[in-house]
Amino acid sequence: MIKAIGYAAKHSYSRLKPFEFERDEAKANEIEIAVLFCGVCHSDIHQVKNEWSNTVYPCLPGHEIVGHVTTVGSGVTRHAVGDLVGVGCMIDSCRTCEPCRTGDENYCEGPNSWLATYNGPMVPKAKAEDGKNHYGRDNTFGGYSNVVVVPEDFALKIPVGLDPATAAPILCAGVTTYSPMKHWGVQAGDKVGIVGFGGLGDMAAKIAKALGADVTVFTRTKEKLAEAERLGVTGVLEDDTKTLAKLKASFDFILSTIPEKHDVNPFVKLLKRDRTLTVVGALEQMAGVDNSQVAFHRRSVAGSLIGNLADTQEILDFCAKHGIGPDIQVIAIETINDAYKQVIDGDVRFRYVIDMRTLKRAD
Amino acid sequence: MIKAIGYAAKHSYSRLKPFEFERDEAKANEIEIAVLFCGVCHSDIHQVKNEWSNTVYPCLPGHEIVGHVTTVGSGVTRHAVGDLVGVGCMIDSCRTCEPCRTGDENYCEGPNSWLATYNGPMVPKAKAEDGKNHYGRDNTFGGYSNVVVVPEDFALKIPVGLDPATAAPILCAGVTTYSPMKHWGVQAGDKVGIVGFGGLGDMAAKIAKALGADVTVFTRTKEKLAEAERLGVTGVLEDDTKTLAKLKASFDFILSTIPEKHDVNPFVKLLKRDRTLTVVGALEQMAGVDNSQVAFHRRSVAGSLIGNLADTQEILDFCAKHGIGPDIQVIAIETINDAYKQVIDGDVRFRYVIDMRTLKRAD
Repeated sequence: MIKAIGYAAKHSYSRLKPFEFERDEAKANEIEIAVLFCGVCHSDIHQVKNEWSNTVYPCLPGHEIVGHVTTVGSGVTRHAVGDLVGVGCMIDSCRTCEPCRTGDENYCEGPNSWLATYNGPMVPKAKAEDGKNHYGRDNTFGGYSNVVVVPEDFALKIPVGLDPATAAPILCAGVTTYSPMKHWGVQAGDKVGIVGFGGLGDMAAKIAKALGADVTVFTRTKEKLAEAERLGVTGVLEDDTKTLAKLKASFDFILSTIPEKHDVNPFVKLLKRDRTLTVVGALEQMAGVDNSQVAFHRRSVAGSLIGNLADTQEILDFCAKHGIGPDIQVIAIETINDAYKQVIDGDVRFRYVIDMRTLKRAD
Repeated sequence: MIKAIGYAAKHSYSRLKPFEFERDEAKANEIEIAVLFCGVCHSDIHQVKNEWSNTVYPCLPGHEIVGHVTTVGSGVTRHAVGDLVGVGCMIDSCRTCEPCRTGDENYCEGPNSWLATYNGPMVPKAKAEDGKNHYGRDNTFGGYSNVVVVPEDFALKIPVGLDPATAAPILCAGVTTYSPMKHWGVQAGDKVGIVGFGGLGDMAAKIAKALGADVTVFTRTKEKLAEAERLGVTGVLEDDTKTLAKLKASFDFILSTIPEKHDVNPFVKLLKRDRTLTVVGALEQMAGVDNSQVAFHRRSVAGSLIGNLADTQEILDFCAKHGIGPDIQVIAIETINDAYKQVIDGDVRFRYVIDMRTLKRAD
């Protein structure tokens, strides 16, 4: 057993507090990682507060993890001690279903679906059809911790030239926005809209621009228009109905990154015929869509969930190659509860990344 | 001028009553058609009652028209006097926009969009960007009439072997359900779900079956289960949650034909990964969709509007070849208001088709 420390919430109404626990040693196919950085994802907050009604406590979040390999299992071939690696939202999957066999582990259809890095697996024992848990546990602990142990194929290589702290949010925010752009075929010259300009939106805009797209971000925050300009993309206020009217039926793809229930109707109207608006930020009941706007142009409203391992490696390499990454602010773990408040208030344009070396054992 | 007669509503609260009016003579590229049959579409009722808030009165419905050519313009080459032809939802389009040039007239992006067979054009002068009406009129009169005049390329050939009355609903209900099945690639062996088992649902189920799909219809009406059995498709009650649970993530395509606001969530769950549910029946604000169900399997909820001319000819020929068509009940025009009531009450499984020869001049 490995004695581990981290920050966890004991209840939906609790603040994150120091937490001591044990992790299993690395098995033959696993590696142990000393965590350097862990990004703060808006979903961490949803999960900690049980806003999806599926949180198992204690809840120790964190699925944007970068660290050094400290131990490798006897069968490990991909990574060596000292390698800089990343772990995203998943740490295992059933490996036998059709999606797993075709490299879409994030859509694993095994009885427990994929094993989430924290609060996993995605389908707990109680809800699994066979009432079993094939991963042996109903609650994983994430990266707000000094150490993680994962199967080697669920650890990505952090490419040379990518700053380790900057790399962390790419493991979730990066691939979550890249994967749908790849799936729906965004290419150079396409007009791409990004709705919401927080952590996901920032990554989405940068990736779309690096793909050669003509990018427009839609934001509720006037102050973020200057930031759009700085990125070299067009910024439009969500309530600027005059500009929205001019933009109707002009977009090849729109990605909504707003992390809560929202109305996509104003943006559906902006899609060209036969094009898709994909929601990645929200995992709840959305506002109703006006089917006259959808049907009259044979548009689609879709959803997408994180990304697979291959896409994650691809976007890490892509970001390194193009010199892009999230705008981050590195924080100490002690300030995590204040950081959550800032994210909830929607005031932040950058991604918080916790320097896990600020984590100290209580004793 | 041609002296014409028909049945029209003068207000949203009026019953359809005999109506005399004039039509322009056929121009060089147009044909005059003596109407034999006109189908009754649920959208006729929405339009007559101004349920889409865009009805121009008097409203003379009917866009499932079959008749004989009686006059041809000087430049007409496709049709000859005596030919049996059909007219669907459109009688013209801008002919210059990208969709028109690529044969998708039903998605015409011209200033007035396509010219609807009645209550057309789709975008009236007042709402057109240039404030003009390129078709010269803001209210067309449909097929609940003894005569129609249309451009020859908007008239389809009724193939030999297809009963003229049976052919009528194929011009709307047939192509509206066939077009999305073609667009989303339904093929033999696919598992296809049809939600709603009225006029559209009946056609959809027959077409999907003839395409070689494994078809399940979802209905609220217990009595319709026997009808599904008779068609050789599986019938499931919409509130049979036990069966719905068993069917989850098993469908390749689902078509919702319910002609009003409804909740697609129970059916979204039945789609396989990366598959689409398309709404064709309703043209209004839908109930909100749970994006966790959409995103976890990268599903899409789409809409589709009628079909283009080529698809309309294709489905007429397909129905003739496979010996399929709507179950119809031929009625006299005098009973149209009673027929509307039956359709509104959802009691009918067949499609009403008006024998227009029952229409008599008042004098």
